Amino acid sequence: MEKIFFEPIGHVATQQSDVPRFYTVSDVEGELVINKSLQAGLSDIEVPSEIVVLFYFHLSRKFSADDLQVIPPSRQDLRGVFSTRSPVRPNPIGLSKLTVTSVRGNRIGVRGLDMLDGTPILDIKPVK
Amino acid sequence: MEKIFFEPIGHVATQQSDVPRFYTVSDVEGELVINKSLQAGLSDIEVPSEIVVLFYFHLSRKFSADDLQVIPPSRQDLRGVFSTRSPVRPNPIGLSKLTVTSVRGNRIGVRGLDMLDGTPILDIKPVK
Repeated sequence: MEKIFFEPIGHVATQQSDVPRFYTVSDVEGELVINKSLQAGLSDIEVPSEIVVLFYFHLSRKFSADDLQVIPPSRQDLRGVFSTRSPVRPNPIGLSKLTVTSVRGNRIGVRGLDMLDGTPILDIKPVK
Repeated sequence: MEKIFFEPIGHVATQQSDVPRFYTVSDVEGELVINKSLQAGLSDIEVPSEIVVLFYFHLSRKFSADDLQVIPPSRQDLRGVFSTRSPVRPNPIGLSKLTVTSVRGNRIGVRGLDMLDGTPILDIKPVK
């Protein structure tokens, strides 16, 4: 099977250690600290606006066949992993929609974090 | 810098060779053919429904600093790459929202493809 390599474009910085499981219920603020070499790519990110952030679930345990069906915290029945946002998935990529509160150099202030301090960021995209 | 590696969970199959640049303007139909070993993870994907698909821009040329600002096809001005959907980006991950038209075994029928035949799929997520 083909292997695909990525490198983080930066990481999440937040002082809050207790973040909600999902961005839709989060008011946590923090910053996306992007590698300085990529700073020119941040131009045109508006304040305020919403962005899509793809990140790496770096603390999740390794996926196994037992994780193909899971019981989400909000439910009581087993669900196929691709119908859930479980952090334990074949490729542990997370997706959040965050509100941009500031852009200063290579640091994007955001609200709505459901990622832990130090989470590697893979990509930033416009919402539409 | 930390390296992260992923393996495709499957690939796109479509007979159409001329796909639109973006899913919002696409009526192209095709299938997501998921590895049989992961088929149990597809349960609970409803028909019809919408899903988010993350994929690998496997044919894009390698990103360089010259690609940090690009002129999108729909515009005439330079934009920071993270404010665009350019396939040439630091980590070439694409995001599409597709309509599910069928689920049969390990094959998900979809409409709205903006991916080429053979595109490696990284993840499938619920829209909300």
